[in-house]
Amino acid sequence: MKRVKHIHLKSGLTVGALVSEMNACGVLGAGKIGKAAEIVKEMFSDRDYTVFLTLAGPLVPGGMKQIIRDLIEQEYVNAVVTTGANMVHDMVEALGHHHWIGTFLAEDKELKTQNIGRIGDIYIEQDAFKGLEKWMYKTLESIPETKRERISTTELLFEIGKRLPDPESILATAAKKGVPIISPGLVDSIAGFHMWMFGQDKKLRIDPLLDTHKLVDIVYEAKKAGIIILGGGWPKHFALFANTFREGVDRAIQITMDRPEPGGLSGATLKEAISWGKVKPEGKEVTVICDVTIAFPLIIASALEGLGKTH
Amino acid sequence: MKRVKHIHLKSGLTVGALVSEMNACGVLGAGKIGKAAEIVKEMFSDRDYTVFLTLAGPLVPGGMKQIIRDLIEQEYVNAVVTTGANMVHDMVEALGHHHWIGTFLAEDKELKTQNIGRIGDIYIEQDAFKGLEKWMYKTLESIPETKRERISTTELLFEIGKRLPDPESILATAAKKGVPIISPGLVDSIAGFHMWMFGQDKKLRIDPLLDTHKLVDIVYEAKKAGIIILGGGWPKHFALFANTFREGVDRAIQITMDRPEPGGLSGATLKEAISWGKVKPEGKEVTVICDVTIAFPLIIASALEGLGKTH
Amino acid sequence: MKRVKHIHLKSGLTVGALVSEMNACGVLGAGKIGKAAEIVKEMFSDRDYTVFLTLAGPLVPGGMKQIIRDLIEQEYVNAVVTTGANMVHDMVEALGHHHWIGTFLAEDKELKTQNIGRIGDIYIEQDAFKGLEKWMYKTLESIPETKRERISTTELLFEIGKRLPDPESILATAAKKGVPIISPGLVDSIAGFHMWMFGQDKKLRIDPLLDTHKLVDIVYEAKKAGIIILGGGWPKHFALFANTFREGVDRAIQITMDRPEPGGLSGATLKEAISWGKVKPEGKEVTVICDVTIAFPLIIASALEGLGKTH
Amino acid sequence: MKRVKHIHLKSGLTVGALVSEMNACGVLGAGKIGKAAEIVKEMFSDRDYTVFLTLAGPLVPGGMKQIIRDLIEQEYVNAVVTTGANMVHDMVEALGHHHWIGTFLAEDKELKTQNIGRIGDIYIEQDAFKGLEKWMYKTLESIPETKRERISTTELLFEIGKRLPDPESILATAAKKGVPIISPGLVDSIAGFHMWMFGQDKKLRIDPLLDTHKLVDIVYEAKKAGIIILGGGWPKHFALFANTFREGVDRAIQITMDRPEPGGLSGATLKEAISWGKVKPEGKEVTVICDVTIAFPLIIASALEGLGKTH
Repeated sequence: MKRVKHIHLKSGLTVGALVSEMNACGVLGAGKIGKAAEIVKEMFSDRDYTVFLTLAGPLVPGGMKQIIRDLIEQEYVNAVVTTGANMVHDMVEALGHHHWIGTFLAEDKELKTQNIGRIGDIYIEQDAFKGLEKWMYKTLESIPETKRERISTTELLFEIGKRLPDPESILATAAKKGVPIISPGLVDSIAGFHMWMFGQDKKLRIDPLLDTHKLVDIVYEAKKAGIIILGGGWPKHFALFANTFREGVDRAIQITMDRPEPGGLSGATLKEAISWGKVKPEGKEVTVICDVTIAFPLIIASALEGLGKTH
Repeated sequence: MKRVKHIHLKSGLTVGALVSEMNACGVLGAGKIGKAAEIVKEMFSDRDYTVFLTLAGPLVPGGMKQIIRDLIEQEYVNAVVTTGANMVHDMVEALGHHHWIGTFLAEDKELKTQNIGRIGDIYIEQDAFKGLEKWMYKTLESIPETKRERISTTELLFEIGKRLPDPESILATAAKKGVPIISPGLVDSIAGFHMWMFGQDKKLRIDPLLDTHKLVDIVYEAKKAGIIILGGGWPKHFALFANTFREGVDRAIQITMDRPEPGGLSGATLKEAISWGKVKPEGKEVTVICDVTIAFPLIIASALEGLGKTH
Repeated sequence: MKRVKHIHLKSGLTVGALVSEMNACGVLGAGKIGKAAEIVKEMFSDRDYTVFLTLAGPLVPGGMKQIIRDLIEQEYVNAVVTTGANMVHDMVEALGHHHWIGTFLAEDKELKTQNIGRIGDIYIEQDAFKGLEKWMYKTLESIPETKRERISTTELLFEIGKRLPDPESILATAAKKGVPIISPGLVDSIAGFHMWMFGQDKKLRIDPLLDTHKLVDIVYEAKKAGIIILGGGWPKHFALFANTFREGVDRAIQITMDRPEPGGLSGATLKEAISWGKVKPEGKEVTVICDVTIAFPLIIASALEGLGKTH
Repeated sequence: MKRVKHIHLKSGLTVGALVSEMNACGVLGAGKIGKAAEIVKEMFSDRDYTVFLTLAGPLVPGGMKQIIRDLIEQEYVNAVVTTGANMVHDMVEALGHHHWIGTFLAEDKELKTQNIGRIGDIYIEQDAFKGLEKWMYKTLESIPETKRERISTTELLFEIGKRLPDPESILATAAKKGVPIISPGLVDSIAGFHMWMFGQDKKLRIDPLLDTHKLVDIVYEAKKAGIIILGGGWPKHFALFANTFREGVDRAIQITMDRPEPGGLSGATLKEAISWGKVKPEGKEVTVICDVTIAFPLIIASALEGLGKTH
């Protein structure tokens, strides 16, 4: 057994140095952060790893967009499985709209009269979605109808990414780098409802089984598989279950505030995933119980610093 | 202001009487249970209500199947929006497999060697899914190819329900009663992966935008709209967002262990939903922070007792 | 292994019948409620058990007073270890003040100007504490000075209970029945601050080590020991650690919303308590993750119904 | 309203720079961390502030000892209100024992046979407490009997600190610097039980009302008051309530994983504290929902870096 080492704060400590202290501490939340950073460093330093990133919860509205985008740009992440909502918010930002700092204690009836939608303590004007609707209609129209007759969400998001006028966008960056953004549940998003309305007039048939195909193909080709799970939801399940086709991922971290007791997959430990063959029994995994907006920057900054890489 | 009334336990108290005490208590978790039961009673007693039920988390594995099935059978629920997983577990039970009482403290590597998958403290044999796979293949084959060329998840689950040999099944009961089971994220479930494999050989094109259409139709036709949200996830978002087409639901309850602070929709309060037009500003709503397997039976038993109905 | 049995809601179900269904279900929160009720029934039905009840969190403000009082009155509970706050709120109610149903979304600056203190969604007028202060001064004065020179919190609360003019009070009932109310942390309560002010003028020396003595004596005399832990805090630790002097309790239930991950004792599982000798390795224990105001009435009503007792 | 600014990770980012990014992000957990660091920086940079630090949960076992000790040594903290347990663990470390990195998934019956106590994923040998018991007996004996006839926990912990042979100890450092360590609930700790046993043979009378006196004196003398609350419990209440004697603290941060919904004080927001006069209506406060071992090092390192101070 190793001793718990007390965290020592020195002057001008880098994030990597702090996370090393946490790793040496080794217990509770600090220990999990330390272990997660080590696992991510392993994934990022070995180019044999296919790294999956799954997104659920308000990551784009919550200020995580650039980190995600940079990980794609710099080729640390090879496939993204995401809720539709995160891509909706990426699109509205790319179209020039913004998210605003609000409060959890809002008077929601009042916000409604001001046409502001609330996500926790984040505000967004409904106008952003009206702007999106127009742009979406035009964009879908610009995709050749033959393609629209049967299209995966992955391909659809690729087409959207190609047309987004903002190099800071996740979708635009992923399209440029050829990193697939997979979102078979896309219809459950505001953009999904826009797509449905488009489909009332024009041809649009989304085939989510093509997304399964795409994802399983990536799984089959992976020499080693690593996964970074932000926040649970169906992206966690979809990406992990696909990895049962290769007997599980080799490395996995999960950051969530959900807990195991209610039994839902979002709060399930990655140990549980071993029983299903989603994580290899001999793999390394850690679940960090923490707000993603705190733990994710900490872990990624530390892992990248450990690689001696700028970011 | 009303006084907090202390809960008084009398001999042989019925569930309805206990929940009335909780309602009179009026505060903390007890008060929320009391208020939720009142809201559900309103929805169930007024046949003008279209009642939506959304399912996320291990409700079927966790012993909630019969309550859900009975609510459908007795016409209290008019549309179900569900994760694929709950329907997968309904199917495997209908095919004669079972869920078993296990432990959260399992040795997952050991479970894996025994071909047991774990969901919290619930165990299920992997054989159940092999059985499902065979049955699914045969069942999909039995659906006319013309239908399989473009099918919503709602219609697909209806076809499955018709063929399930178990009157206790949610899907079978819903098929019999004509209650739609809507699951546009179905591809993210074990059955979804089976469907993908079937689709490698045979024709199968799932069109989730047809599910949007179906759901929005039900929303448009609702005189009054009520919703019971179990556990969050995308079913919560899909059902609530569809209800923005009628300016929000009139009555809503949500039971979840998720909390608002991380910002994700699963933990978002129903107050937040007012800002988006998902719940009417003048509507009634309550969020109950509780394990669904505790609160849901309590609330439903109480609401039904209040209606003087057997169940 | 036993099968998960689906909960079946029948007409006019008693609480005991519902909890039996939960026990047969056997998993997740429902299963824990069922197991806890079984354990409590064992403790309550065997008069060899010394039953400890520990109180933390707003149980009296939150409507649990009568249940606690009745358990004392009916001799199901033999010793109570409590935060000072719960006894403060028992006193203010016994003196004719009330708790009011408020809201979590209060404007606290506004409440302050109205002299209302908030506890979650419970309100109380500051006047209640002014009333308490006067009564406390008079009451302390009426205790013979020789006694006040060295007094345990247990004895002090007994003297207070004897003088409280309300048979519905926990303290009054406990005094009448001779059930000790042990609160060595009493100084951290509003009454504790009143005691300090009294002690500026008059003699008052509280000796909390006498409380340790009292509690350990009860532990030594117990043939069998059972404990019901509501909400954690130091009452949980004090009562459990005292039981290490008899190699641990035989039966234990805990109801809390705290979780193990941050490492604090309030959220620690009762399994962890086995490592410390607080719970016997061969004992029975269960931790129920639930709002106390929901789970406690459910478990107690069910256990008492199982005993065929009125309450 | 301000825009949510996406966090940007650059090469070799210092902790202060990362926390500045979080502050500019402004929402969810990241925003809270940013705001907390700003508030702490204000407290630390203005020597008119009397800064209270409250400790609950396994901070010393969990690797936070050195940070706490350094804050005392460097005179950033002027009074500590703590559970007894944290000081017990400080003592056992000062006496040469250690905490070990274990696992949450321990087999507790097995640990018991190995005489290891578990705190989350931290292990400690029971021998450590035997060593403490002997040392405590000797130490108490060395305190003059006249002092032992009536002693506050603050004075007792000061006497202990003076005698602890380890400059890295919190108690030793506080004794050296004259910073009071206030723990009126000390009897509820292993050391408290040792004190009780000592008191069976020898004179020892702890008077916790003297602690109230001490704390209120510090409150009265504060020009400005700031508080850092780690983990809730009675230390939070005791320190905050004492500050009602000066109409509330001016600056407050709280780090906890507890939530408001169950109504307990540990999870209560600092907004609620305004209604009670514990925090000034015009004060600044923030509650950070995070594992203390993650957020506390992050906030303190950032605040100190902002002060241009080594630590």
